[in-house]
Amino acid sequence: MRITYLDNAASSWPKPPGVKEAMAEAIDDYGANPGRGGHALAMKASKTIFRTRMQVSRLFGIKNPNDLFFYLNATQALNQAIKGFLREGDHVISSSIEHNSVRRPLEYLRRTKQVDVTYVEPRADGLFYAEDFQAAIRPETRLIAVSHASNLTGLILPIVEIGRIAKEGEVAFLVDASQTAGILPIDVEKMNIDMLAFPGHKGLYGPQGTGALYVRSDLDLEPLIHGGTGSQSEAIEQPTTRPDRFESGTANTVGLAGLLAGVTFILETGVEKIHAHEWSLAKKTIQALQQIKGVDVYGPGTEIERVGVVAFNIHGADASEVSYILDQQYGIATRAGYHCTPLGHRTAGTEERGAVRASFGYFNTDEDVELLITAVTEIASAFHPS
Amino acid sequence: MRITYLDNAASSWPKPPGVKEAMAEAIDDYGANPGRGGHALAMKASKTIFRTRMQVSRLFGIKNPNDLFFYLNATQALNQAIKGFLREGDHVISSSIEHNSVRRPLEYLRRTKQVDVTYVEPRADGLFYAEDFQAAIRPETRLIAVSHASNLTGLILPIVEIGRIAKEGEVAFLVDASQTAGILPIDVEKMNIDMLAFPGHKGLYGPQGTGALYVRSDLDLEPLIHGGTGSQSEAIEQPTTRPDRFESGTANTVGLAGLLAGVTFILETGVEKIHAHEWSLAKKTIQALQQIKGVDVYGPGTEIERVGVVAFNIHGADASEVSYILDQQYGIATRAGYHCTPLGHRTAGTEERGAVRASFGYFNTDEDVELLITAVTEIASAFHPS
Repeated sequence: MRITYLDNAASSWPKPPGVKEAMAEAIDDYGANPGRGGHALAMKASKTIFRTRMQVSRLFGIKNPNDLFFYLNATQALNQAIKGFLREGDHVISSSIEHNSVRRPLEYLRRTKQVDVTYVEPRADGLFYAEDFQAAIRPETRLIAVSHASNLTGLILPIVEIGRIAKEGEVAFLVDASQTAGILPIDVEKMNIDMLAFPGHKGLYGPQGTGALYVRSDLDLEPLIHGGTGSQSEAIEQPTTRPDRFESGTANTVGLAGLLAGVTFILETGVEKIHAHEWSLAKKTIQALQQIKGVDVYGPGTEIERVGVVAFNIHGADASEVSYILDQQYGIATRAGYHCTPLGHRTAGTEERGAVRASFGYFNTDEDVELLITAVTEIASAFHPS
Repeated sequence: MRITYLDNAASSWPKPPGVKEAMAEAIDDYGANPGRGGHALAMKASKTIFRTRMQVSRLFGIKNPNDLFFYLNATQALNQAIKGFLREGDHVISSSIEHNSVRRPLEYLRRTKQVDVTYVEPRADGLFYAEDFQAAIRPETRLIAVSHASNLTGLILPIVEIGRIAKEGEVAFLVDASQTAGILPIDVEKMNIDMLAFPGHKGLYGPQGTGALYVRSDLDLEPLIHGGTGSQSEAIEQPTTRPDRFESGTANTVGLAGLLAGVTFILETGVEKIHAHEWSLAKKTIQALQQIKGVDVYGPGTEIERVGVVAFNIHGADASEVSYILDQQYGIATRAGYHCTPLGHRTAGTEERGAVRASFGYFNTDEDVELLITAVTEIASAFHPS
């Protein structure tokens, strides 16, 4: 059965041409440990990683590529940002749509370091307002940490305005770009973003095993991981130089070679074009789903632009059952459940049952939307015969 | 120029047949997020990761594959073990040949949590004795953390005896198998190993971006990374189930598919055969280097079996200069410097100048040894004309 892949918010698939080939070349030609040996293979590995750092930096307006650190995934990047920055007794402002990769580290610090957390909620219209973040600032507030977009409804947060407020309030600003990196324009300088965390395997079209954190050069975090850096080996302490201070142990050279190909594809295609395509598919999907009897679609109306993530339920049907039927009977890959965002579900009103999520990537087509709509129409009619 | 790769202690190269292909298949066929969606691709990804967990567990005598957690590299695994286990005021015993991936986390805890650390030294014969670890045990000792083998001289530590002592003393036992996983037989049950950390990209012949930690089922560590696990998404706290509790965020499915191929190669070949081959090459190298005028070789005599790592210097020549000439003039990839083990260098007496390290893998041959010996002979004669 042909697979209609609508789970790009979890991991993008397929990857653009060149990703697999770049990884195979890395395995064959320079499977060495970068920066740890001066020999030709290690130099080639170092060069690939540096080029990846450069290209990713270019995409996000990061001036110094050494302010960008590579990790296993966005979750590790977020843990480094949150646990490395916050101190005993700090107050942090976040949102009610956060993924567990933001919420669980915050709640951990609440338990262990008396960090206080305020989760800003959307207003009655379902939207977030920067003023509500401003109103939550207190003297002990040191960080605003928010998702750029919800992984459940695709709702985009007003990060330009929140960034301005953070700057005015002299509060650091961390953005989780898990659903937007490679999809929406992001410029860390213009948007006053002090820390930006993102995965390599979603909108950047790299392989799994890659994620990254940008940290503004004058913010000094405590490293989460200590170890060998290939530099200042004789010192007991982590080196102070970047990126070494925040990148201990052997890097994922092979994965980063793939990420380089993915990011190069993004830079050549342009995020505006990618987002326009994905939103166009999501919008059509939302509008069509709204016409189906017995189907609930979550999030604000389609007059508000979102990223290509659509959450819905069929009345009387379990989300995981619907997702299972879509997979088994129609070959359509969606995701059911809580999507690691219990707060997001409370916000969307789906905390009791979860939701089915369909998420689009650049390689999805109008035909994929039609297949999904036909399938959901059939399934819904079984639950709601007219 | 043909490359003679003698830097396997940093990362093994080349990889066995099948590693690259398994990764390409993962990218093409199931580049999805495992365990986060019930659809066919995600199931295939989950299955690959589970099979990797099974095969790796088999290699180390781990009874429950869910006690094995995958990370970016061995450094992250060691940080999870050390920082997740040790508490304020604990005493830990380690050795003087540790890599910075053990030493720096320990020193960090010394600074921040008043953890006390004893580094056991080798005796005059250059060897470590289990009794010296026993003698260092105090009432507040909670952990013995040692390398299975030195990444500088290849010296093997008596971990069977140390494990017995740890068990008798009711002290947890952590082994860093960075230089031995896939090379020496390791059985966590028989050796009383409570925690075992190792990389996937060295002796296990997987790609970079993979590392793992085994933790005995009744040891409860604090997770180092908090986030989404695809399970119990509605809970504020990390789930208690393994491996989820210790594996937040998207796994490196593609890398783990490669690791599966690497480990399968190890299981089919047999670690005894691999070690015998590598030690045979290292032994020949050591014996030949000892015959060259003006060359110092470090570590004990060749009557003591080691892993395939050889450290040496040419009198009057800088280690990095020698390594550079080997690379540029002879196409021989070695590594010069401190190898992230300042303690190891003090132990070997090379703390002032570092050393050149040649490290062998299963794919090296007698011819590689001859090429190295010829090259070092020529370089040494330039510094020490007879």
